[in-house]
Amino acid sequence: MAVYTNVSADEIAAFMADYDMGEVVSFKGIAEGTENSNYLLSTTKDRFILTLYEKRVDADDLPFFLGLMDHLAHKGITCATPIADKNGNALKELCGRPAALISFLDGLSVSHPNAGNCRQLGAALAEMHLAVADFNLSRKNDLSLSGWKKLATTCEDRADECQTGLGELIHTEMEYLSSNWPSDLPSGIIHADLFPDNVFFLDGKLSGLIDYYFACSDMLCYDVAICLNAWCFEADGSFNVTKASALIAGYNKVRPLADNEINSLPIFCRGASLRFMLTRLYDWLNRAEGALVKTKDPLEFLSKLQFHQKVSNASEYGADIKK
Amino acid sequence: MAVYTNVSADEIAAFMADYDMGEVVSFKGIAEGTENSNYLLSTTKDRFILTLYEKRVDADDLPFFLGLMDHLAHKGITCATPIADKNGNALKELCGRPAALISFLDGLSVSHPNAGNCRQLGAALAEMHLAVADFNLSRKNDLSLSGWKKLATTCEDRADECQTGLGELIHTEMEYLSSNWPSDLPSGIIHADLFPDNVFFLDGKLSGLIDYYFACSDMLCYDVAICLNAWCFEADGSFNVTKASALIAGYNKVRPLADNEINSLPIFCRGASLRFMLTRLYDWLNRAEGALVKTKDPLEFLSKLQFHQKVSNASEYGADIKK
Repeated sequence: MAVYTNVSADEIAAFMADYDMGEVVSFKGIAEGTENSNYLLSTTKDRFILTLYEKRVDADDLPFFLGLMDHLAHKGITCATPIADKNGNALKELCGRPAALISFLDGLSVSHPNAGNCRQLGAALAEMHLAVADFNLSRKNDLSLSGWKKLATTCEDRADECQTGLGELIHTEMEYLSSNWPSDLPSGIIHADLFPDNVFFLDGKLSGLIDYYFACSDMLCYDVAICLNAWCFEADGSFNVTKASALIAGYNKVRPLADNEINSLPIFCRGASLRFMLTRLYDWLNRAEGALVKTKDPLEFLSKLQFHQKVSNASEYGADIKK
Repeated sequence: MAVYTNVSADEIAAFMADYDMGEVVSFKGIAEGTENSNYLLSTTKDRFILTLYEKRVDADDLPFFLGLMDHLAHKGITCATPIADKNGNALKELCGRPAALISFLDGLSVSHPNAGNCRQLGAALAEMHLAVADFNLSRKNDLSLSGWKKLATTCEDRADECQTGLGELIHTEMEYLSSNWPSDLPSGIIHADLFPDNVFFLDGKLSGLIDYYFACSDMLCYDVAICLNAWCFEADGSFNVTKASALIAGYNKVRPLADNEINSLPIFCRGASLRFMLTRLYDWLNRAEGALVKTKDPLEFLSKLQFHQKVSNASEYGADIKK
């Protein structure tokens, strides 16, 4: 929600001279993305997003992220796409930071998705999963089991500052997930952060996916579980099975989930809840006084985790409806 | 530098239904303005800025601000202009806040203005001063002498937390300004906050002025002094007389300054320095832990004030050059 690196008019003009994209006519920092600085840039030819990658992004991962976006765009997936400069380079440097010019996507993210939004989201996720089958780069998921263990170890002692008993709950859940986490399911590249603010709609139709900066190699069905967590709970914490069923049906229609994937949905959902709870808890425990970024509530995902802990069967997500 | 009120896709669609400005295709919070929430909104017809007025703006002042922008636009001054809805209303409500749809201005603000920028700025300021001659609303300048006195009284006791001796300096300066502040000079509506980030340039030419939310009734020459403070000091604190001379010459060419105005420049410059030092000091002393907005450095304007205190004659600003 902030711009961390200020780019001057002279700096942006010099940067854009490397591209064949017209003259800069407008340049505004936008309150989007918690990891990077993003500017909306208009030229005499088109509109773009200019992203400066800040410290939380590992520069070594950028060829994977930009390559993935480029690959998806060439497969016909509507997504933000890096623009190459006159020399064919998409990964550049600006103000001492890695930077990339990205295509601008029209559309608005929905803050209260309906079942129709969820169905389209499911379909778009499945299309992405099919489209990456022949993408030849990979990136380890730092935020799966071993990453959670590290975060849990770091946070456990102080977790009760957030809520009494939270440290113990994290410990027990980590043990359960470590013993039961699936490993033999279809894998590929997952988005891993497909929350509603990363999906645009236009006239009620999904118009694009953005923010691939958590994408990584993992089991595809885990991505579905992340979306169930991100799209199917109401503001009061209740789970909307109509939306979940629509999301899964939308996915299934494009890439049918195998039985063992469907059966793994409850544990994947627990893992996804724990993952977002842990990163939010870490940020919450380490929030800087006076920071520009508001920390998100870890307890939102504690409540979701506790819901999933009670789910015994994927049918409770509506997974067997309209398969 | 932040968005304080989040507007959902549904809310913005409902809001825009009151206008004849096309369908919303994109809507992004921008990191601009410290007082209000600003969104860049694109429709099938055009681009706009949507401003939600937050608590620091007095809603009673909004008809003045919006009326002024509208008046200036009709006088041919290139400035952000409020757009009326289908019923002719420019001042609206959104998410419980006063809100206005404003025209989008192309252009970039310069972070390191050159003398050419300063000359154009001076001319644009003078054009604005001429254009408001027949504007029939007025607004008291809350941030002139009596306002500074209030701020000084509030801050004096704790000013030394910022720098030793600052409380005493403020007290002495307030006494000097109170005894010597001019009162009989040409008056009108002034912008009162024309810093480089409120002025756009395109291809080296000034393309527009924005952010009229400090505009008020006061002596016109005080606006020139604010600009000298905002445009003519280098990052190291030194005063660039070439830029100052260009700014004054640019102004003079459009609206020649009278001798008594020129002679008052040094005291107006002192007042302008004190004004920005005091508001920054107030914000600095009252900064909230974890606030979204970075406080600006009050001492930048202490250093400027100390420069102006040593100026005995407006010729030190280059005011007699190329009159």
